[in-house]
Amino acid sequence: MRRWNGWGEAGTVVELPAQGATFLHERLGSGRALPDATLEAALAQVPTSRLVPHRLYSVDAHDRLLHARGQSLPDWLALREGALGTYPDAVAFPETAEQIRQLLALAHDQDLCLIPYGGGTSVAGHINPPNSARPVLTVSLARMNRLTDLDEQSLLATFGPGASGPQVESQLRARGYTLGHFPQSWELSTLGGWVASRSSGQQSLRYGRIEQLFAGGTLETFAGPLQIPTFPASAAGPDLREVVLGCEGRFGIISEVKVRVSALPADERFYGVFLPDWPQALRAIRQLAQARVPLSMLRLSNAVETETQLALAGHPQQIAWLEKYLKLRGAGDGKCLLTFGVTGNRQQNALSLKHARAHLKAFGGVFTGTLLGKKWAQNRFRFPYLRENLWNAGYVVDTLETATDWSNVDHLLSLIENSLRDALAAEGERVHVFTHLSHVYGEGSSIYTTYVFRPAADYAATLARWRMLKHAASQTIVDNHGTISHQHGVGKDHAPYLLREKGPLAMQTLQALSEHFDPEGRLNPGTLLPESRP
Amino acid sequence: MRRWNGWGEAGTVVELPAQGATFLHERLGSGRALPDATLEAALAQVPTSRLVPHRLYSVDAHDRLLHARGQSLPDWLALREGALGTYPDAVAFPETAEQIRQLLALAHDQDLCLIPYGGGTSVAGHINPPNSARPVLTVSLARMNRLTDLDEQSLLATFGPGASGPQVESQLRARGYTLGHFPQSWELSTLGGWVASRSSGQQSLRYGRIEQLFAGGTLETFAGPLQIPTFPASAAGPDLREVVLGCEGRFGIISEVKVRVSALPADERFYGVFLPDWPQALRAIRQLAQARVPLSMLRLSNAVETETQLALAGHPQQIAWLEKYLKLRGAGDGKCLLTFGVTGNRQQNALSLKHARAHLKAFGGVFTGTLLGKKWAQNRFRFPYLRENLWNAGYVVDTLETATDWSNVDHLLSLIENSLRDALAAEGERVHVFTHLSHVYGEGSSIYTTYVFRPAADYAATLARWRMLKHAASQTIVDNHGTISHQHGVGKDHAPYLLREKGPLAMQTLQALSEHFDPEGRLNPGTLLPESRP
Repeated sequence: MRRWNGWGEAGTVVELPAQGATFLHERLGSGRALPDATLEAALAQVPTSRLVPHRLYSVDAHDRLLHARGQSLPDWLALREGALGTYPDAVAFPETAEQIRQLLALAHDQDLCLIPYGGGTSVAGHINPPNSARPVLTVSLARMNRLTDLDEQSLLATFGPGASGPQVESQLRARGYTLGHFPQSWELSTLGGWVASRSSGQQSLRYGRIEQLFAGGTLETFAGPLQIPTFPASAAGPDLREVVLGCEGRFGIISEVKVRVSALPADERFYGVFLPDWPQALRAIRQLAQARVPLSMLRLSNAVETETQLALAGHPQQIAWLEKYLKLRGAGDGKCLLTFGVTGNRQQNALSLKHARAHLKAFGGVFTGTLLGKKWAQNRFRFPYLRENLWNAGYVVDTLETATDWSNVDHLLSLIENSLRDALAAEGERVHVFTHLSHVYGEGSSIYTTYVFRPAADYAATLARWRMLKHAASQTIVDNHGTISHQHGVGKDHAPYLLREKGPLAMQTLQALSEHFDPEGRLNPGTLLPESRP
Repeated sequence: MRRWNGWGEAGTVVELPAQGATFLHERLGSGRALPDATLEAALAQVPTSRLVPHRLYSVDAHDRLLHARGQSLPDWLALREGALGTYPDAVAFPETAEQIRQLLALAHDQDLCLIPYGGGTSVAGHINPPNSARPVLTVSLARMNRLTDLDEQSLLATFGPGASGPQVESQLRARGYTLGHFPQSWELSTLGGWVASRSSGQQSLRYGRIEQLFAGGTLETFAGPLQIPTFPASAAGPDLREVVLGCEGRFGIISEVKVRVSALPADERFYGVFLPDWPQALRAIRQLAQARVPLSMLRLSNAVETETQLALAGHPQQIAWLEKYLKLRGAGDGKCLLTFGVTGNRQQNALSLKHARAHLKAFGGVFTGTLLGKKWAQNRFRFPYLRENLWNAGYVVDTLETATDWSNVDHLLSLIENSLRDALAAEGERVHVFTHLSHVYGEGSSIYTTYVFRPAADYAATLARWRMLKHAASQTIVDNHGTISHQHGVGKDHAPYLLREKGPLAMQTLQALSEHFDPEGRLNPGTLLPESRP
């Protein structure tokens, strides 16, 4: 069963090993666990719905609680406290595009707001109900999850928007194909959600971002259905696919998604290499990306992330031996772990491996074979579960991310880390901060930063700590040529920073599009764009 | 000197060899040359400008004639006849973004239309002045052609929008880089034009379309400048880069373009392979594209194009020997020429070649080494010059193109070819039609069709023939799941077919964007969207 107040399946537990707890204790002081509300207590706080029962939706308190929040840190705090403030008045589970259109009509007739809901994995407040005079109807696409067509010549698959990562892959794999889109949220997040928020998967280096995979489909809007036909490419004017991508439920509800799939690869391997220091590691990964070696994944942890990962891995004896070996080979303190993957046919993979190894060796890289790569692949979706046991140990963990051009990566990364490290200095609190680059391009890279801090005395004060941290980093990003998000989207948490990034005319353009598709401002108000209506 | 009434430099002549003329005569009957107007006669037809002289523009008749038409077949006919009908009232040559903003202000103050003008190579009527009550000011970006910044870490180059292909490449090559964007119009077309019309280059398989190369820049609009910041990727909402791309001058005038460049490759080769028949050739190229072999170029001519190319190549003795050899190896009548390229480092190129050869051999491919590949590379920009000597021999040549998903490529290709072959049947005229695929993707392919026919007794009747041909093919494309353009853009010639392709809501969306950026409808009216204002 899925956790109601945390990440993933309740049966899946990722332990914090003893030396991991010690490691954090040394850096942050002893943890402080805040008391969790029970499900019953949380349910008791769900107010009476402002909507009368209807065949198209449920006003059940349990449904409404389970669809009230995503997985951001403020969401986490609200769920653990059991006090969410706002809840949807009802949750609909349409099974067809026609039912989505009926819900749009209902919203118009009964003066409702609508919130499209995929897997509920937003970490930026996308699906949180606004504090609105209008009743709020959350529209879960969970029942529209089937592969409805597969064009094996064109490698095009048609899905319902609510198909989760495992639902997408299992239906494709049964036919010999893969989408190859693996965001860390893959177990729960959905195809429609990926499109609506411009998701990127861990193997984007091979398969592309969702922008490259999304071939077309249908967006149901208040102005009618927007059909995006599938073409491999087109010069027929501005690309409206790119207006659906990232619309975050503001322009409409996606009712069908057509994606570009691939034949399952014959061979796939992941490898670990330690680079002696960050400056060399950064040059190595940049030049590797720019050399177009056909790798399927590249991820570089900075020195603190490398140290933290080794501390949290368990197996201290093995780690100690590894570190001894690495030191002998020139990768001691300050070393950085680079993981890379090759996917495809064996001969090509062998050549790509050869090129990557030779390239990294020139930067002092110590190759360690497939062991760490296998570990990465096994654990690739497990990191979000760790929040649970960190919380139980009395620590709060959150992540944030951006992307920027290579000439700015190191500068921006340092500014972000410093902004987080210093953000709680006035309270005398330390923050443990570390970073990796995991989506690399010829032009630049994503920057993905994790920060760990201690809760304050109560929930409100803990949320205030988070706000200081989040604001410090977000302002730093947009003030220094970073995008407010490379892969998480805008939601409500990042919306205040968008103007700085895009400028006034771009914001007016998005607003004009919103008014075009949704003249009464009913769709997901407050997400992406500032709220402008009741 | 550039030809005033045809393609390219006047000094460059591509001959029609004798056996080429014989080949066409057999298929179409004897040619009929229509009389060309002299430049003096054409200049005499330029009417008095409706604009008074101004420091920001020229009202000179020669300037106005040279910027009145592009390179579509109707443009060709108008120029050869010397009767263009509409002319710009003036031509501006701004040198800075500030001067572009002054021109926008002038257009507002004096009630003008503005037509942004790159290299004048449109084959879809993009830059033809409308028959408008408002005076028309054409804005040539030719003087804004410099590389103004090069970020060698991020591989980002900043150019003025008017840089032509050779200006782009020569400035980059001096620093060791290439953009790698080589449309057939490369000698004359410009970076800003490529962005505005979603151009695709012959090596898009390696470098991507202009959509992948355009990183950001500035669009000067009536609502202010739209600045597109450069990020390697972003999830910060809908991508407004993709609204600038393909806007065809309707939303604003591009004043600066930032592009993603590449280090010059160490090695590049092109190869020729003959496949025994079209069905096998089509399967071979599809599977090669879908196997992700890192090739830089793939082009497959169908049987009639292969036959025509060999007839037009000259050297009949050598061709006869080649055909004898090919027949012995199983590629006789119906054979199809596939050209492919590898670009990058030598080891990778060797492996890609090995994979491509093995793959094509399985489909009966006869490998002929680099000779035909070299010929292709030498002649890659020469095809447009051939129109001149075909015209002189009494034949008209035009091309059109689309893209569709693989499962539809063969079907649509046949429908297009048939629609052209039959279009002049009522007049008893034959049309020589042939096709290649030159931009391949996992999902599908472009389809590029050439058609040759004889002029009628006069210019008006010849234009009427072209209209029948063009309409038959265009309607066939949009009625059968093709895009109205893969690489030429919409302009005025394709605008009537866009509604069928995109549907009413998409058209309203483009219209809403046009009204947002250009509320008075002054920018390039009639291009992309139907004209809706005076």
